[in-house]
Amino acid sequence: MHVTSEQRLDDGVIERTFTLGEIPGILWTPGSATASAPAPLILLGLPPLGLRAMYPRLVGRARQATADGFAAATIELPGSGDRPRWAAVDQARADLRRAMQAGEPISDEIIDALTLPLVEKAVPEWQAALDALLSLPEIGGPVGYSGGIISIGIRLARVEPRIKAAGLFAGSLVPRSIVEEARQVTIPLHVLLQWDDEGNDRQAALDLFDAFGSKEKTLEANMGGHTGVPQFAGGTAARFFSRHLG
Amino acid sequence: MHVTSEQRLDDGVIERTFTLGEIPGILWTPGSATASAPAPLILLGLPPLGLRAMYPRLVGRARQATADGFAAATIELPGSGDRPRWAAVDQARADLRRAMQAGEPISDEIIDALTLPLVEKAVPEWQAALDALLSLPEIGGPVGYSGGIISIGIRLARVEPRIKAAGLFAGSLVPRSIVEEARQVTIPLHVLLQWDDEGNDRQAALDLFDAFGSKEKTLEANMGGHTGVPQFAGGTAARFFSRHLG
Repeated sequence: MHVTSEQRLDDGVIERTFTLGEIPGILWTPGSATASAPAPLILLGLPPLGLRAMYPRLVGRARQATADGFAAATIELPGSGDRPRWAAVDQARADLRRAMQAGEPISDEIIDALTLPLVEKAVPEWQAALDALLSLPEIGGPVGYSGGIISIGIRLARVEPRIKAAGLFAGSLVPRSIVEEARQVTIPLHVLLQWDDEGNDRQAALDLFDAFGSKEKTLEANMGGHTGVPQFAGGTAARFFSRHLG
Repeated sequence: MHVTSEQRLDDGVIERTFTLGEIPGILWTPGSATASAPAPLILLGLPPLGLRAMYPRLVGRARQATADGFAAATIELPGSGDRPRWAAVDQARADLRRAMQAGEPISDEIIDALTLPLVEKAVPEWQAALDALLSLPEIGGPVGYSGGIISIGIRLARVEPRIKAAGLFAGSLVPRSIVEEARQVTIPLHVLLQWDDEGNDRQAALDLFDAFGSKEKTLEANMGGHTGVPQFAGGTAARFFSRHLG
């Protein structure tokens, strides 16, 4: 892990950009975090739109997390942002767009091609990032995962014992094999659902919520489309993480 | 409205029992509420188990409300507690129990007989209670309705313009005509659903949530049965009322 820049934001949060091998990432720590009082960590999942494009929303989530005493970190997904393009995933995205524009049902083949290679490649990267981040003296456990892509969150929650709680964004473009993995997830979950999400099937999202094996799981459904998550939902998720990681 | 007792609870909350004609009720006000700084009011809905039996849970909800700066009040439902028995509703409850014990589907006739007369009689009583409570100098608007019976909450939200927000407990034993009324409800709603509620059909409860006409409505679904609402759900509902009535 190689720190490439460091700045202090106006609210005292320390923002560091880093690279982990070829993977760019960003780490935010509360000004108050020290080796003697290390902060728990929330991994900020993100859609495959690139760190640069997502920065304004990511820094907003990071400010909330650091205000609650957490460190927050994210890394660029394979094939996104400044990382080399990934022809197979680009092709799957083009197939998805074509099917959606034609009003066709999204086939299992498209969903698998879009998601499974990304999960297979991204999850070990997030785990490597965890190794590096947890070696910093000002960051301790436990660890939470927050946000999209939900299939990555499910796999991480299943295979990575350092992750103790996850706040996920309900989607329906989830491979059947990942829905099966969800049954093996047992950590506390907070799942956000946009009731009229134009990109997701509501019933499939409800079925996925039902599938999770966790004894403590909460579904919070709000009105509006994919990008219409109300501001107060950020507060509910923050309190979820404070309950489980604080 | 005739106050029959008054005491100050250990946290400074003033608890008054009262009668409104033949109807017993309880009012809790924050110690800080005065004529110059009147408190907004939350009406605490309750199941038909009687004020006395429900008191421990009601006073817990009232303490939360008063801690947030609200007054809280409730009245006995017709046919419950110390009020005269109501043969028709008792009969409908017996029919419901018999059907449930026999594992039969609950017919529309039973649901209507159980609920519609209660709604017709209780809603004007809650409105009369509102008239009396809002005439007290230490209580002001706006008003929220919180809790069961959801059919009473739906009717009140539809017909009573002084009610500006409602926190409801999702149920499925709701007459079809009341589901139609839900389409005309437009105030902000916070709806709690217990995912494995043994007394309610999940899909019917989701359909009812979908039916509400409100632009701002949130569904919070938690694991567990009818009485297993987790403690943190009280906090989410409290923040909902603070956003809309505070």
